[in-house]
Amino acid sequence: MTSSQKIDSSKKHPSVRQEKDLLGILEVPSEAYYGIQTLRAVNNFHLSGVALSHYPRLVVALAMVKQAAAEANHHLGHLDEQRFRAIHEACQHIIEGRYHEQFVVDMIQGGAGTSTNMNANEVIANVGLEILGHARGDYHHLHPNNDVNMSQSTNDAYPTAIRLGLLLGHDALLDSLEQLSTSFAEKGRSFADVLKMGRTQLQDAVPMTLGQEFQAFATTLGEDLGHLRQQVPPLLREVNLGGTAIGTGINADPGYQHVAVNQLARISGQPLVPATDLIEATSDMGAFVLFSSMLKRLAVKLSKICNDLRLLSSGPRTGLNEINLPARQPGSSIMPGKVNPVIPEAVNQVAFEVIGNDLALTMAAEGGQLQLNVMEPLIAYKIFDSIRLLTRAMDMLREQCIVGITANREHCQALVEGSIGLVTALNPYIGYENSTRIARQALTSGRGVLELVREEGLLDEETLQDILRPENMIAPRLAPKNVVNKP
Amino acid sequence: MTSSQKIDSSKKHPSVRQEKDLLGILEVPSEAYYGIQTLRAVNNFHLSGVALSHYPRLVVALAMVKQAAAEANHHLGHLDEQRFRAIHEACQHIIEGRYHEQFVVDMIQGGAGTSTNMNANEVIANVGLEILGHARGDYHHLHPNNDVNMSQSTNDAYPTAIRLGLLLGHDALLDSLEQLSTSFAEKGRSFADVLKMGRTQLQDAVPMTLGQEFQAFATTLGEDLGHLRQQVPPLLREVNLGGTAIGTGINADPGYQHVAVNQLARISGQPLVPATDLIEATSDMGAFVLFSSMLKRLAVKLSKICNDLRLLSSGPRTGLNEINLPARQPGSSIMPGKVNPVIPEAVNQVAFEVIGNDLALTMAAEGGQLQLNVMEPLIAYKIFDSIRLLTRAMDMLREQCIVGITANREHCQALVEGSIGLVTALNPYIGYENSTRIARQALTSGRGVLELVREEGLLDEETLQDILRPENMIAPRLAPKNVVNKP
Amino acid sequence: MTSSQKIDSSKKHPSVRQEKDLLGILEVPSEAYYGIQTLRAVNNFHLSGVALSHYPRLVVALAMVKQAAAEANHHLGHLDEQRFRAIHEACQHIIEGRYHEQFVVDMIQGGAGTSTNMNANEVIANVGLEILGHARGDYHHLHPNNDVNMSQSTNDAYPTAIRLGLLLGHDALLDSLEQLSTSFAEKGRSFADVLKMGRTQLQDAVPMTLGQEFQAFATTLGEDLGHLRQQVPPLLREVNLGGTAIGTGINADPGYQHVAVNQLARISGQPLVPATDLIEATSDMGAFVLFSSMLKRLAVKLSKICNDLRLLSSGPRTGLNEINLPARQPGSSIMPGKVNPVIPEAVNQVAFEVIGNDLALTMAAEGGQLQLNVMEPLIAYKIFDSIRLLTRAMDMLREQCIVGITANREHCQALVEGSIGLVTALNPYIGYENSTRIARQALTSGRGVLELVREEGLLDEETLQDILRPENMIAPRLAPKNVVNKP
Amino acid sequence: MTSSQKIDSSKKHPSVRQEKDLLGILEVPSEAYYGIQTLRAVNNFHLSGVALSHYPRLVVALAMVKQAAAEANHHLGHLDEQRFRAIHEACQHIIEGRYHEQFVVDMIQGGAGTSTNMNANEVIANVGLEILGHARGDYHHLHPNNDVNMSQSTNDAYPTAIRLGLLLGHDALLDSLEQLSTSFAEKGRSFADVLKMGRTQLQDAVPMTLGQEFQAFATTLGEDLGHLRQQVPPLLREVNLGGTAIGTGINADPGYQHVAVNQLARISGQPLVPATDLIEATSDMGAFVLFSSMLKRLAVKLSKICNDLRLLSSGPRTGLNEINLPARQPGSSIMPGKVNPVIPEAVNQVAFEVIGNDLALTMAAEGGQLQLNVMEPLIAYKIFDSIRLLTRAMDMLREQCIVGITANREHCQALVEGSIGLVTALNPYIGYENSTRIARQALTSGRGVLELVREEGLLDEETLQDILRPENMIAPRLAPKNVVNKP
Repeated sequence: MTSSQKIDSSKKHPSVRQEKDLLGILEVPSEAYYGIQTLRAVNNFHLSGVALSHYPRLVVALAMVKQAAAEANHHLGHLDEQRFRAIHEACQHIIEGRYHEQFVVDMIQGGAGTSTNMNANEVIANVGLEILGHARGDYHHLHPNNDVNMSQSTNDAYPTAIRLGLLLGHDALLDSLEQLSTSFAEKGRSFADVLKMGRTQLQDAVPMTLGQEFQAFATTLGEDLGHLRQQVPPLLREVNLGGTAIGTGINADPGYQHVAVNQLARISGQPLVPATDLIEATSDMGAFVLFSSMLKRLAVKLSKICNDLRLLSSGPRTGLNEINLPARQPGSSIMPGKVNPVIPEAVNQVAFEVIGNDLALTMAAEGGQLQLNVMEPLIAYKIFDSIRLLTRAMDMLREQCIVGITANREHCQALVEGSIGLVTALNPYIGYENSTRIARQALTSGRGVLELVREEGLLDEETLQDILRPENMIAPRLAPKNVVNKP
Repeated sequence: MTSSQKIDSSKKHPSVRQEKDLLGILEVPSEAYYGIQTLRAVNNFHLSGVALSHYPRLVVALAMVKQAAAEANHHLGHLDEQRFRAIHEACQHIIEGRYHEQFVVDMIQGGAGTSTNMNANEVIANVGLEILGHARGDYHHLHPNNDVNMSQSTNDAYPTAIRLGLLLGHDALLDSLEQLSTSFAEKGRSFADVLKMGRTQLQDAVPMTLGQEFQAFATTLGEDLGHLRQQVPPLLREVNLGGTAIGTGINADPGYQHVAVNQLARISGQPLVPATDLIEATSDMGAFVLFSSMLKRLAVKLSKICNDLRLLSSGPRTGLNEINLPARQPGSSIMPGKVNPVIPEAVNQVAFEVIGNDLALTMAAEGGQLQLNVMEPLIAYKIFDSIRLLTRAMDMLREQCIVGITANREHCQALVEGSIGLVTALNPYIGYENSTRIARQALTSGRGVLELVREEGLLDEETLQDILRPENMIAPRLAPKNVVNKP
Repeated sequence: MTSSQKIDSSKKHPSVRQEKDLLGILEVPSEAYYGIQTLRAVNNFHLSGVALSHYPRLVVALAMVKQAAAEANHHLGHLDEQRFRAIHEACQHIIEGRYHEQFVVDMIQGGAGTSTNMNANEVIANVGLEILGHARGDYHHLHPNNDVNMSQSTNDAYPTAIRLGLLLGHDALLDSLEQLSTSFAEKGRSFADVLKMGRTQLQDAVPMTLGQEFQAFATTLGEDLGHLRQQVPPLLREVNLGGTAIGTGINADPGYQHVAVNQLARISGQPLVPATDLIEATSDMGAFVLFSSMLKRLAVKLSKICNDLRLLSSGPRTGLNEINLPARQPGSSIMPGKVNPVIPEAVNQVAFEVIGNDLALTMAAEGGQLQLNVMEPLIAYKIFDSIRLLTRAMDMLREQCIVGITANREHCQALVEGSIGLVTALNPYIGYENSTRIARQALTSGRGVLELVREEGLLDEETLQDILRPENMIAPRLAPKNVVNKP
Repeated sequence: MTSSQKIDSSKKHPSVRQEKDLLGILEVPSEAYYGIQTLRAVNNFHLSGVALSHYPRLVVALAMVKQAAAEANHHLGHLDEQRFRAIHEACQHIIEGRYHEQFVVDMIQGGAGTSTNMNANEVIANVGLEILGHARGDYHHLHPNNDVNMSQSTNDAYPTAIRLGLLLGHDALLDSLEQLSTSFAEKGRSFADVLKMGRTQLQDAVPMTLGQEFQAFATTLGEDLGHLRQQVPPLLREVNLGGTAIGTGINADPGYQHVAVNQLARISGQPLVPATDLIEATSDMGAFVLFSSMLKRLAVKLSKICNDLRLLSSGPRTGLNEINLPARQPGSSIMPGKVNPVIPEAVNQVAFEVIGNDLALTMAAEGGQLQLNVMEPLIAYKIFDSIRLLTRAMDMLREQCIVGITANREHCQALVEGSIGLVTALNPYIGYENSTRIARQALTSGRGVLELVREEGLLDEETLQDILRPENMIAPRLAPKNVVNKP
């Protein structure tokens, strides 16, 4: 069953159990580990079609939070040994990847995450009941609210789980980004001696190497790698567990917060610390806004890089044609032999999606009111979605495109030689006025700059060759001082 | 199989067939109706996890386009009877809902929709081959490109299918919106005599009825219903079928466009017409930008309405508490008896998602270059997604919230009577200066406006009662002329 | 004085007058026609630095609303002849362009436009007082609230003025767009016989003419011209004048709405009609959301066109170099002879600004609550700003770029002849397999498609010449039926 | 003269000088310090109407860059003493605030900032000429390009100036934010003993203090203060000065970058360092994207806080009415005594504007191509604009609203006492079932929770009083262990 199917409890199911809550009685499928409140949520929210189980790290994080809370409650004497053991083991199963299909609530939901929290509480209670030898739904022995959710509110357990879930997935994002950056750097080294024209404003500028261009892609992604690696964990590690309903910690044991957060840090291996202002931490979405912004920045860079790759590989005959992207699929059913830059194109689209996600998240963050941000489920959904999309897109880009890129070395060289932009390198030697005149002459006559310089005898051949040596054109060099100042 | 699983063709599958394209040979699962190009796309694009089959109307529209093209090709003598029959019947099956699970390509894809088009071509070819009694993959008898895709390019077939798919789903969107608007209007009638305070800038303003408030919700949604009903079909009905690769119609029969579009109109029952400037129509995404904007406007209105519903139902004791939303699920695991406005909250989140979708689509539209918009797959994805989300959210809102709303009539009445805003109604009778003085006195003393007016004998009781009759406060009335002009 | 300077009323001004309102007394500069409430607003809102006077049509529209209201109030016997004459004449002065510098409030303001409305009321009252021979500030003879604002609330007068202001400026926007579209169409005619390669996904596709490309720009802008011309006036012409505070028309004469709107239609020459649901009309921002979306669509199209112009003119040696944009300014201080596409670049940036404006407006529209949208000042600001930016950008684009574009006819022709994409035109004659083989051979050998076809004797020269005639490549033509179906 | 007026050089000006560039001759007003290229830009770009001079820190930063470059060029022997002195002094004047009105180019411009750079070059040259005793325009003695722009390209000088300009203004932004945060903290202390109901999802939740609520506003802004203070300088301090045209440093002296950046750090007092990958640094806009995102986050928080202030002050009679915002201006021309929360309303609108700016900037960043981001002028404009708007809005919010807020202590207390949410505090003592029953009974009967608890004798008065002591309700406390576990 997925969340995109409404669960019809009206017809007599051959195998159901009855559960009850404040609003009345519903029939839950016998085999389900979730319970009545999950069922209500599934029936209420038939929206995105994306169930909680699509984000396994969120599910794992929920289980870790519940396990840590149980540890704290047990330690403080509020939860007896038997119930604690049952909850602990049930959580452990989920942490290890079992029962995820029981997390059936839609990622978009009202209630500020209550349905997600109750889905976790109910599944853990029923798995725990099974462990204890009781029937599902026999909550007298282990209760979703009173035992599994003890000392917690959705309003602290859910944001804590989101933060933790993001931390748990962070290495995968960083790995993907690092590998992509590395693949660009490797191409940068391969192309280190491919001389080509640089372009500004899409107009011929001055020479550079294709290696410099690819190394710049590596550098710019490397900066984001650094930011994401260093700044995201501090953003996310402050958790509001222990704040309960609104951050005042009402109904929680004074010792609970400390023990629970410590246990959660131990269980998850993440450097979690308690938020210092729990009132603020309960409603504030700032960490997600900033994290999403960093993802947006990465998306912007990836999109720019893919635009460049598509430009550089344009052609083969009527475009720039400096590089070749590996062919991934036939490009056209009507144009024989056409191969398109499908991989960068797909990355562009992912980038736009991530930017759209950031906007949805921004509006959700702005829409919070008073002691809670009720739009947090959308915030969680969009940030997990952006991470997944970016990770997949970066892996795709590296594996199916970057590693297979080749350079059209001779064509690049020919473009440099035919370019008017070469005149810039001559500028310090023949002066600005001569340079401008030569440039204009080349443009109107269709002839080459070097040809004209030679024809006019403006420079001797040795100097010319020296100027034009690639290593001299792609880095600063000492220019002759007597020429450069002339207007 | 879903698009979120990569298809591993490396290990020897017990049952595969070999297919070949420009890039080489791949093994396709024997039972698959799709072919090698679909397989390449699935392996290339492992991104959103949302397969084409998630949008059945898009799949149906693709089949209709292929059927119409086959009709035209047959009619013009390019496609023989046998192949035509096979294509026609295969398309018909898909139109009737079969084989949709074979549309496995991710909605986000490079290639400007080529993979979607080829997925359709291959499924239709293989279903057609089955009809003709041949094995899957035996394209000698019916070829995905040469026969199914005859006279078409992705660049005309795909945009045409998107437009048609949107038209096919339009009535469902309108129905959902109309029913929602109607449900508000019905509540408007039920609450016609519930007098309450209107609020501007969240401050007490002047009296109105709750019926007026709900009728305004109906009116504002009714305006969008009108716009969507009248303006969307003209936007979408111009299709570029027949333009082939870039709109010049290269390699298409001069009679093809006319016949194909007519057939498509007939098959679909939609009032399709050929685009007049096929070059423009091939790359232009304007219709989708505007349609998405209309959806965004609807989302903005729904969000505003849901914000209002949440405000009006805030409380029960420390909020406005003018209306009660039906309880849909227990509101808190820690706060007994708490019931939250979960349905409007979920609608808010859908609205933000739709606004985010509109941004992604906008960027994709802006990202088109020269003779094609290569970001069209994202555009299609986002607009179908917004429509689905809005339809589901509107149905949810109506069924699970609006129809069950009740009014707290006495509390509304009491708020009016205690309000200082009442003084506005007295303004034309006692003058602006007296009104201001009374207002201030009421505010500082905590006493009621009417009480003070009576105490001062500013108006006789009969006049007062007349002024305060609801029907007199909620509409224009003739004010006494001698008072109103006094500064 | 501009709104970006706070008005310091603390120091003894040599020439001030004292005015009083609910909050106390302030000193207003003697020469000012605005009064105390305007002064408070100027002191409160020191934000954008953009005063109301930056949008003269908004100022004129405010004056027209006040004039129409005075007409109605006079007609209904609420406003005496003398006061009416004074208000009428004062408004007329403003309509004719005088006193605009007195509209000093910042476009971004709290209060839902109250400060704008009071700025108008105060200026009109003081101009009227001058007409009547009284001193400024002597409101006993003509009062900003009681007389000028009679029967109005900010909540109906202000939205009405915004709508009217937009209508008053609409022709200028349409003119600018029409002229731009026409200039593209003219270039389309000039370039009708310039054969060039079309490109899809930045890869060589099939031939077209440069004329077709420019005509497509004209067509796509022409569609927006049509939409804006036909759909905007109906969106804006429904005004809520007469609704007063929240749309119930409280304190307005029952006959007022009808007379006032009729007068306003007469004065402005715009087809204004009363809104049917005044409650809805008071808070609904839907018309602005949709209008802004249409502006966004136009921005998206302009940006795409300018991206294309920059691509097509890229080079001169290492880019596409199909067209030349007129040089507008030297392109570089370091690179002699460089000329850049500065005009399209500026248009791109305007487009992004307009898209950003649309987002700000969208959030403002969503942020409305209950009976009023308090964010309306931002909405007005952003939509007037987008219109002004687009109008200026379109004029700039046409005057300084489009009309001066020239084609590099020979280079375009040479690219077609050297292109592998030519093989698509041969496809129906030599079959898909031969075409693919020739395409590959051309690509690997660097030789031309035609050369290879001739060498292999695949087509006789006469047929080849016929196929390659421009008029045959850029439109559908009857293909030989015996070849095309071969797989 | 402002940039919103086109400069008409066609009519014979009584006092003009002629200047010449690549495109020909223009007449520049004699008194102007800017020259022909600035004039061309003013004539080309008549868009936003916002001239460079609106952002004095950008102008100062430009002058500092020119001064530093001159230092380096002089030091390295490329610039003679006399010219160096003239440039140095001219820059010093601008740094000290003179000649800013000469920076007349529109903030939105094509050319990737060339016009801005040339505006600086020309003004400095002409001021320098004046210092040297020469006439304006007599560039033979001091040339805008050859001398002032020596060793620079727009592509390194302009981005360096933007970064520096932002650093120069950073303290003002931080001060404004810190003061605002402090003002909230002070209110937090004042309201430390005002007990009130917390609300989640706009529904009554559990008690807290108004002090906690205001302290949370201080905390959340304090986090942004920390982020902006620590993270922005490292983002911006890497400058690409010395990279010249595309980052290869072509035509610059090998020693130039080091000296120039060191000098710039010295002159500005900012910790500037050379970018390590100059190719990357030339086109990368990542720092601006992230800075703008941080501003967006601040805007989101400010908007949320202002939404809360408006909610908490809603009423006076029909809203929450927990706090009073200081009255800033009369709220209505029709409703006597109405005072509106105009200051927070204006902040909301600024926040939306900043979010819109962030989108425009994001699109501009994504729109960069190859070796340069040609959209950088818009990026600079939007980020300077957001900073200015936020600074002004935060000052306004603090001065005109926060410091004057008062609490309605008794009303807050009464709401707590009447609230059903009180039952949550009793939950650990009387059990979940009793609590739920009492809550429901209270809701249906309209009676108070405490009244019912007393009536039923569920708790002795002493315990009840103990539970209800504010200090016990607003923080964790040890609950009785025997009750809480009961289902």
